[in-house]
Amino acid sequence: MEPFKIHILGCGSALPTLRHNATCQIVEVRGKLFMIDCGEGTQIQIRRSRIHFSKVQAVFISHLHGDHCFGLMGMLSTFGMTGRTNPLHVYAPKEFEQYFNLSMELFCKGLEYEVFFHCVETTENKVIYEDKSITIESVPLEHRIPCCGFLFREKPTAPHIKRDMIDFYKIPVSQINNIKAGADWTTDDGEIIPNTRLTIPAEKPRSYAYCSDTRYMKNLHKMVKGVNVLYHESTYADDFKDRAKLYYHSTASEAATVALKAEVGKLLLGHYSARYNDEKQLLKEAKEIFVNSFLTNEEMFFNVE
Amino acid sequence: MEPFKIHILGCGSALPTLRHNATCQIVEVRGKLFMIDCGEGTQIQIRRSRIHFSKVQAVFISHLHGDHCFGLMGMLSTFGMTGRTNPLHVYAPKEFEQYFNLSMELFCKGLEYEVFFHCVETTENKVIYEDKSITIESVPLEHRIPCCGFLFREKPTAPHIKRDMIDFYKIPVSQINNIKAGADWTTDDGEIIPNTRLTIPAEKPRSYAYCSDTRYMKNLHKMVKGVNVLYHESTYADDFKDRAKLYYHSTASEAATVALKAEVGKLLLGHYSARYNDEKQLLKEAKEIFVNSFLTNEEMFFNVE
Repeated sequence: MEPFKIHILGCGSALPTLRHNATCQIVEVRGKLFMIDCGEGTQIQIRRSRIHFSKVQAVFISHLHGDHCFGLMGMLSTFGMTGRTNPLHVYAPKEFEQYFNLSMELFCKGLEYEVFFHCVETTENKVIYEDKSITIESVPLEHRIPCCGFLFREKPTAPHIKRDMIDFYKIPVSQINNIKAGADWTTDDGEIIPNTRLTIPAEKPRSYAYCSDTRYMKNLHKMVKGVNVLYHESTYADDFKDRAKLYYHSTASEAATVALKAEVGKLLLGHYSARYNDEKQLLKEAKEIFVNSFLTNEEMFFNVE
Repeated sequence: MEPFKIHILGCGSALPTLRHNATCQIVEVRGKLFMIDCGEGTQIQIRRSRIHFSKVQAVFISHLHGDHCFGLMGMLSTFGMTGRTNPLHVYAPKEFEQYFNLSMELFCKGLEYEVFFHCVETTENKVIYEDKSITIESVPLEHRIPCCGFLFREKPTAPHIKRDMIDFYKIPVSQINNIKAGADWTTDDGEIIPNTRLTIPAEKPRSYAYCSDTRYMKNLHKMVKGVNVLYHESTYADDFKDRAKLYYHSTASEAATVALKAEVGKLLLGHYSARYNDEKQLLKEAKEIFVNSFLTNEEMFFNVE
């Protein structure tokens, strides 16, 4: 199976600390790298990781708070200085566009690669990116400003051909695509070989949902139903439930509640408030509701499976 | 003597490395803190140091390359979140103003402290800041875009009164200011006590010149003549002299030549190209021309004396 991994480059929140970097993740799927959010210091975090700058093909910005986007312009400049030639796509809420264009004009003139800006409508759940192997959807969230998450889904793949059976029944190459598409095979004797004997079922498409800054949404689970891995912000533990509400953030328990209701495979926690010296309390509270909860941390990665 | 110190928060150049941060210095003089340049990651560097966020009263941006200003907006947001109420002044080339205003509008609405923007004319050498104890001048430099350095000068202070002599001659308090201003004292017997017996001379005003990105300027020494400490960028060693020229940067030897001609007390080197694994070569080449040369490094400070 091709890798589908989430690399954590930063999992802190607005106030920087010496323990956590501002938010950034890299989603590696079907040989491509997509960045989600790009807080200050992201380019240093990339350098610390073993990820190749040049392979990042698009950046998705969830909302316009500095801890989710202040690393973008520095990274784009650096891409330019390190010889990037592949185009780069930036997806962000429309409020970003004017600022982005002005920043490009002021700081990134004469880059030797093209940058394309795409407005994301944060209030709709729809496909905003598609290629032959994946789709990426926006997931509307409820924060103090327009904000959305991103849902990565693999497209279904064709089943695998059982080479030895094809040879045995002398099925011509011209028929392979039909077999992959589900056709049975009729031999010269009129015997029908059911498709299940000729193929191994394709892997189930995998999916990853990134839910950036948001207050608890009682219907969010419907949009992320059954994903293999859900990242949901968990800025606070229950001790600051009121503060979470006030600032449109979530507690670890609320993140876990979404995970439980959505019946996801695995929950990743992050966007930790600077007030915690460690995140044990957050993990404990999440696990009480959804046992398959994990703390993210810089330089960790998680497989989507 | 009150401290006059240069704290180095970052001394790397455009390409970030794991060894050096993007440019930022804090000048501590007469109880005040001034920041010069504010590369990405500056707020983390402040946190690493023992410098109090709230005491920085002004930020001076030398030019609009990202490695000198991409940390500014993140820092201003963080100041807001950490309860700053003191106003902050930002001095930068006029080309920055529109971008700055838009950034403030987008990312820093509702700060609980005021931010004042001041345009700096980078082509003139003139006083751009003054208070009762210091002046700060712009120093025109020659880079690919408008760029200037900053020259901090203490104002002359009054000589110190010799308390025991004042008591001995029973000089009334009302006369102290005259004595400080240089007056002699005539006793009731008509004896003239020369001012030199009544006072200890004031310390000589100290000065620090920060010369940001620039190609070698054969007349720069005139503007920074005799400063106690000169910081002059030294991006390259002699091996990349041509590259220095091409990109309007300086070599360590060129920085040292300016120091020598300006007869400064001490030369600080910085803005090192990412291509050097250490800066020994730069220091060696600088010292061959100006022996009192020093490498800056993150978390170091230098006294101006």
